[in-house]
Amino acid sequence: MISDENAIQDLVARFDDAANRRDIAEFRKLWTRDGVWEIGDPMPLHVAGADTIATTWLAALADTDWLFRGSFAGVVLIDSDKATGLWPCVETGTFADGRGYDNRASYDDIYRRVDDAWHFQRRHYTYLWLSNDKLCGAPVRLVEAEQQESIS
Amino acid sequence: MISDENAIQDLVARFDDAANRRDIAEFRKLWTRDGVWEIGDPMPLHVAGADTIATTWLAALADTDWLFRGSFAGVVLIDSDKATGLWPCVETGTFADGRGYDNRASYDDIYRRVDDAWHFQRRHYTYLWLSNDKLCGAPVRLVEAEQQESIS
Amino acid sequence: MISDENAIQDLVARFDDAANRRDIAEFRKLWTRDGVWEIGDPMPLHVAGADTIATTWLAALADTDWLFRGSFAGVVLIDSDKATGLWPCVETGTFADGRGYDNRASYDDIYRRVDDAWHFQRRHYTYLWLSNDKLCGAPVRLVEAEQQESIS
Repeated sequence: MISDENAIQDLVARFDDAANRRDIAEFRKLWTRDGVWEIGDPMPLHVAGADTIATTWLAALADTDWLFRGSFAGVVLIDSDKATGLWPCVETGTFADGRGYDNRASYDDIYRRVDDAWHFQRRHYTYLWLSNDKLCGAPVRLVEAEQQESIS
Repeated sequence: MISDENAIQDLVARFDDAANRRDIAEFRKLWTRDGVWEIGDPMPLHVAGADTIATTWLAALADTDWLFRGSFAGVVLIDSDKATGLWPCVETGTFADGRGYDNRASYDDIYRRVDDAWHFQRRHYTYLWLSNDKLCGAPVRLVEAEQQESIS
Repeated sequence: MISDENAIQDLVARFDDAANRRDIAEFRKLWTRDGVWEIGDPMPLHVAGADTIATTWLAALADTDWLFRGSFAGVVLIDSDKATGLWPCVETGTFADGRGYDNRASYDDIYRRVDDAWHFQRRHYTYLWLSNDKLCGAPVRLVEAEQQESIS
């Protein structure tokens, strides 16, 4: 039997994994039906309802050429079938228009246990630092093309 | 009942969270009364006693415009009411004088259980890589001001 | 008694720690005897057998001046004495020839419990983003030399 703390870390990691693989079905089922997804300045967003959250998320990803998410060790506090958590994280990527995207931020979460599984009731993203400068490197599916270009 | 491994990860994450929110009360209570905080070259530091550690930490933060800390998956070894751990981590920030701060490092820890809660008995920070070059991006409270500047 | 989820996170963190300290004995014992280590494009690698994996790993490290690895929160699924996992991660370093190395990637793992301890049966590394541009900062053992140089 997995502990509540490990189950919530798993939930947080599945969110990142869904983003990294752009898997909307996986992303959708992480939320309670009435879940709320909030992003703070300078890219403010407030979306409610798992279906709306999932389609909003997919539309945001569509504006990026690639995006990576990772969550550092976080704080979790269990209170019966509710819980709260705070997860420092990083996102790196490139927008379709060529701008870079790199940040240091944290997710402030409320979780709820529904049908024996933990879900996001609310995620609130707070940016601590953000850069839109062009990144040095390239997404890997482009690396070989670039190498060939620089060889020829 | 939370496992010892999860409780120690929680302690490590609270340290990062206290730094990211500059919360000295939260930071202070993570240490044993006779705790020791050490940082290796090139910014060597050795401080003993939870109160002295907390005021030293706050003074160091005061020299920064912003600072982000995150801890990657770490190794923990429990031995009754003592434990040891090793946590790779990253710190990113900007000094008040404009210099950047970005590193890859690790915390080598000794923990002690006091009054049923795990505390830091000793943290030793080892830098693997350090950059003081100016960062590309900006802390978020400055982003809007800069955007307005570039618009006008 | 440590949970399976925590034991596997410990295994993943020991892999990173062995890399950060270049400890081949520690690295070697993390694998099953018939373990498989795979790296995807653009640096494809397929190595089988713990001994061959360890010597291949050490030879790869020898081409780097320094290397840091860290794993973000991961997803683990236990199935009796087998398990699977997915861990987003970052590697940063400098090659001996001066080129930088910075990536966002993930390890897709199969674990097997052997003699009451979890081991890697297979690790497959997928690059999401890779940069070989020169890094801004320096490994710490070089920092003091550089500071003296810039002073004189």
